Amino acid sequence: MSTRALISEFTGTALLVFFAVGAAVLAGDFIGTVGIALAFGFVLLALCYALGPVSGCHVNPAVTLGMYTAGRIDLRSAVGYWVAQVLGCIVGSAVLFLLAKQVPGLETHAQFGTNGFADRSAVELGMGGAFLAEVVLTFLLVFIVLAVTNRLAVVGFDGLPIGLVLAAIHIIGIPLTGTSVNPARSLGPALFAGGAAITQLWLFILAPLIGGGLAALAHRFTHPPGGLPVEADAVE
Amino acid sequence: MSTRALISEFTGTALLVFFAVGAAVLAGDFIGTVGIALAFGFVLLALCYALGPVSGCHVNPAVTLGMYTAGRIDLRSAVGYWVAQVLGCIVGSAVLFLLAKQVPGLETHAQFGTNGFADRSAVELGMGGAFLAEVVLTFLLVFIVLAVTNRLAVVGFDGLPIGLVLAAIHIIGIPLTGTSVNPARSLGPALFAGGAAITQLWLFILAPLIGGGLAALAHRFTHPPGGLPVEADAVE
Amino acid sequence: MSTRALISEFTGTALLVFFAVGAAVLAGDFIGTVGIALAFGFVLLALCYALGPVSGCHVNPAVTLGMYTAGRIDLRSAVGYWVAQVLGCIVGSAVLFLLAKQVPGLETHAQFGTNGFADRSAVELGMGGAFLAEVVLTFLLVFIVLAVTNRLAVVGFDGLPIGLVLAAIHIIGIPLTGTSVNPARSLGPALFAGGAAITQLWLFILAPLIGGGLAALAHRFTHPPGGLPVEADAVE
Amino acid sequence: MSTRALISEFTGTALLVFFAVGAAVLAGDFIGTVGIALAFGFVLLALCYALGPVSGCHVNPAVTLGMYTAGRIDLRSAVGYWVAQVLGCIVGSAVLFLLAKQVPGLETHAQFGTNGFADRSAVELGMGGAFLAEVVLTFLLVFIVLAVTNRLAVVGFDGLPIGLVLAAIHIIGIPLTGTSVNPARSLGPALFAGGAAITQLWLFILAPLIGGGLAALAHRFTHPPGGLPVEADAVE
Repeated sequence: MSTRALISEFTGTALLVFFAVGAAVLAGDFIGTVGIALAFGFVLLALCYALGPVSGCHVNPAVTLGMYTAGRIDLRSAVGYWVAQVLGCIVGSAVLFLLAKQVPGLETHAQFGTNGFADRSAVELGMGGAFLAEVVLTFLLVFIVLAVTNRLAVVGFDGLPIGLVLAAIHIIGIPLTGTSVNPARSLGPALFAGGAAITQLWLFILAPLIGGGLAALAHRFTHPPGGLPVEADAVE
Repeated sequence: MSTRALISEFTGTALLVFFAVGAAVLAGDFIGTVGIALAFGFVLLALCYALGPVSGCHVNPAVTLGMYTAGRIDLRSAVGYWVAQVLGCIVGSAVLFLLAKQVPGLETHAQFGTNGFADRSAVELGMGGAFLAEVVLTFLLVFIVLAVTNRLAVVGFDGLPIGLVLAAIHIIGIPLTGTSVNPARSLGPALFAGGAAITQLWLFILAPLIGGGLAALAHRFTHPPGGLPVEADAVE
Repeated sequence: MSTRALISEFTGTALLVFFAVGAAVLAGDFIGTVGIALAFGFVLLALCYALGPVSGCHVNPAVTLGMYTAGRIDLRSAVGYWVAQVLGCIVGSAVLFLLAKQVPGLETHAQFGTNGFADRSAVELGMGGAFLAEVVLTFLLVFIVLAVTNRLAVVGFDGLPIGLVLAAIHIIGIPLTGTSVNPARSLGPALFAGGAAITQLWLFILAPLIGGGLAALAHRFTHPPGGLPVEADAVE
Repeated sequence: MSTRALISEFTGTALLVFFAVGAAVLAGDFIGTVGIALAFGFVLLALCYALGPVSGCHVNPAVTLGMYTAGRIDLRSAVGYWVAQVLGCIVGSAVLFLLAKQVPGLETHAQFGTNGFADRSAVELGMGGAFLAEVVLTFLLVFIVLAVTNRLAVVGFDGLPIGLVLAAIHIIGIPLTGTSVNPARSLGPALFAGGAAITQLWLFILAPLIGGGLAALAHRFTHPPGGLPVEADAVE
């Protein structure tokens, strides 16, 4: 675990939260569900190619848990990544909050908490359904991340499937829960939104972590152990 | 045919059915035809990069038939793949059904059967037109799959065209038949939908298989025989 | 020029016309301008990876003219490609016509001719504007094709930019002229549409060819001569 | 700095401005925010693969500033690139202006200036907010460009993330400022639009340059120095 890797996770999580959550908060009325989903997917795709060679570009505590469960990183690195991700999501949310305050008529507090269930779900999905949805949605994300960085995979073809599957996950998940699949992506904005975004936050931390852990278990049945090397480790 | 390959086909088909059919069933009103099409395409693209090195990522009985007709896999493997795909589509549909039941106001049975003709087609396409449509749509899919995994192809550039062409096939086909091009994708949801989804199911099994077989025949005129090796066979 | 190459150009042009024009004709009301554009782009992207190793996947007389002007293929091959493309566009249009006839309420003749100017342009662009538009739109397409297959390019990264730039060209061009940039794509459907689609057809043959030729000239100033080898020539 | 490189930057900037700004000006009513964003992203993606091997495909003065700040090009080359980009944006805008004049009912002057703040922002974002937005939006673009062309990156996987992140940046930024992140993209059209597009132009030159410079500074903390070689330098 290099210092560069920690800065990479911090920077990537901050940028993901600013841009992807920002698309929902600032531009949602103009771009709709598909536009928000593409923003999440395309930003993560770009971050994967930018930061993947440095830190693996987890930018998501559930991905880090999956990587740890799959034996790809040690506990010390995982804890370092989690701290960097939490700090990053707070900074990204803070800058977004600063910008959103400048938009006339935007109810910053209400619109910032974009993950929710029951009356905060577009289809009024209850707590149990939301929990199941977040587990399955995160399962797919982390399963794809582990598989496309498995040692069987072709070098370079990781960011493309990871980014586009996140877009697909948002296409289906936004009407259900707003799509978390990433505890950091829910935590940062919730701190600024307050209210129900905080009281419902536990689900969007717990369910994605369970989904990520289950994906690492399933991965053992489909793939042999071992991942592609992270480029920075080989070069430096 | 390794056990990993069978688990791979089972898992991939279950995930494809859950996420792609789920996009249509759970989020259709929010994302429209293009959104559903992108969900199908992006999920398949990701699965190709995740599972391609293990099983070739057919996740579709018509693709497996095309691969068998093209001499890329033996009959025993093809049968194994078909069984895994059928089991996978049932499990994926069951989990989706469980989630859909939690959404207030969703008529699970009616909306689950998303492939149909006559009064179940958005443009009221009759049986003959639907049959022709499914044959031609599946022809393109399987032709692309065979060609981009042909031994002339550049390694790694398979999941990208396969996923995006599935998106294009859905863009044109959703208004016609809801787009099957995959007997497993029609079978699983139909079992839970019942009614007309069952009585019309034969078309969405037969026409895709014919399209897939024809694609394998056409492929012989455009490409030399032989495919790129599946990575897992070389590594393990 | 192998027989496989000619069959490849025939098959590719037929599939492009069926699926991309089909998206506009059959699904236009459901998918809008962006959906049609993505269908064109994704299908061409897939065809590039499927047929590129066999014939270079021109599937467009203007691309073939650009390739000939750039010295990448000889005149005899170019003529063979043009004949194959014209035959392909007719067959693709015929199958599409057959299917469209099955859709209740579709005015096959009027809706089949999707390229036009004056009162047949969504923004009522006149003849001069349409000519300029088609020249510039085709210039970009053929310039990109020549550049990403230039010997400086990285192997494999050709179908991705070619397909997505065709999508972008349609995003801007559909409101103007319906976007031809491909004489075969205009010729085939016009034969079945008749009427104004035929009397305006000259523009959608001439302007794309001029744009393609100009692109080949501009390419000389930006790139050194010589293209990447077509894989089939090396393997067979 | 070869002559080919300068012609490449001129041509690329002209094509980007014509097609991407053209999508907003000519087709905006048909394609919406997401359509405009995809046009920008897909055109840049294609240009990256076409011109990247020749000049690195900056086509944006803020990218060139970032490359200079990161020590990837010398000052003389940077100045040459800036001149080529400015000339290119003017020529691209002139051709677009010529075409737009042919579209009945298009208010060329008003609609040409697509970057603005206060009453020229769709969400009425003020000057300070617009400045912050353009700094952060350009930061992401230039950070991604520097990172995916860093010597740690996998060859070939640069145009994909660069193009798609530009699409994402437009998805979020169009409602805010119309999204500049490229002084050339704002300058060219403003010269033809006149009026407020000129008086507000300073912000869309200054803020992107600051964002690009900050990205180069941040890049030093995440990545080791040195970029992948530009192919033309190695081949010629």
